[in-house]
Amino acid sequence: MANSQPQEGVSGRKIIYDEDGKPCRSCNTLLDFQFATGKISGKRAASATGAASSNSAGSLGPTATEKIPGSKTHAKGDPPDVEVLGRSSWNLLHTISANYPTKPSDRQKSEMKQFLQLFSHIYPCSWCASDFERYLRDHAPKLGSRDEFGRWMCDAHNEVNVKLNKETFDCNFWQKRWKDGWDE
Amino acid sequence: MANSQPQEGVSGRKIIYDEDGKPCRSCNTLLDFQFATGKISGKRAASATGAASSNSAGSLGPTATEKIPGSKTHAKGDPPDVEVLGRSSWNLLHTISANYPTKPSDRQKSEMKQFLQLFSHIYPCSWCASDFERYLRDHAPKLGSRDEFGRWMCDAHNEVNVKLNKETFDCNFWQKRWKDGWDE
Repeated sequence: MANSQPQEGVSGRKIIYDEDGKPCRSCNTLLDFQFATGKISGKRAASATGAASSNSAGSLGPTATEKIPGSKTHAKGDPPDVEVLGRSSWNLLHTISANYPTKPSDRQKSEMKQFLQLFSHIYPCSWCASDFERYLRDHAPKLGSRDEFGRWMCDAHNEVNVKLNKETFDCNFWQKRWKDGWDE
Repeated sequence: MANSQPQEGVSGRKIIYDEDGKPCRSCNTLLDFQFATGKISGKRAASATGAASSNSAGSLGPTATEKIPGSKTHAKGDPPDVEVLGRSSWNLLHTISANYPTKPSDRQKSEMKQFLQLFSHIYPCSWCASDFERYLRDHAPKLGSRDEFGRWMCDAHNEVNVKLNKETFDCNFWQKRWKDGWDE
């Protein structure tokens, strides 16, 4: 059955296409991507949705066990979809804020500001990047101290949580979640 | 039993301490961190090593099911250790290279060069950051096209694989692994 350029994915979200007209891997969930490329039917994708989303809650992607030619250890993992990419990037961004100096120098502040701006230009999911760029414009990064920056990042993540109908995170716990852990 | 500032972790690698004298979460494996903080004994950590490393091969972190106070969905996940942080960051970096333009403008080249330099300054694992900074100095990023950049990133990752005694990845497959997938 032909499945040419559907507008909406199994998730109910709009399918994002690259400039060359192909569905964008980094901008769609794996299931929506597979649906848009005709690899799976809408019915099959819908029945897989439950399992896939519970799997994606904790995993970083590749569940494939088949190895790439000539390799004993490297599995044929799928390229990150928008969710794996998102979790990976928040891991990095929150950990960066957790390791930001408590008393940053002017240079450290200006490097971090520049890093966040560049990040918003080159982030592989185009609509996420635009949203982050707008967030940066409307909410200048608070870079006066580690705690300020950690909370700013937590707020930035919560804006995305709201957009995706996810529960927000209580930012009073940002340091336990991303720096100290829960048992101290 | 007191366990004050051990030099070497259960992994056999040197324990990295922050400037304040505490073990660095983002620079050590979770087990080495727990060993250095006296949370687990060397014996218990050693017996856990097998299970933990097979778990960490695919997961992006939190295995905790207990929720943070007041939340229905946010689990008390551990802050990323050096391995979770590493996998997350390679996910992001390879996907960035996979979405780099096939014919980048001068501005896009210069922004990416700057991004990589800043990345090497602020990456939360200090010894990883220094190694990446040195790699950038010795191997200027190849930013003439997507394929050039994707291969450069694959080579950079392989240098780390060698350092960690892991199998290198055949960079002829970089685009399948990080952009196109294996079934086209």
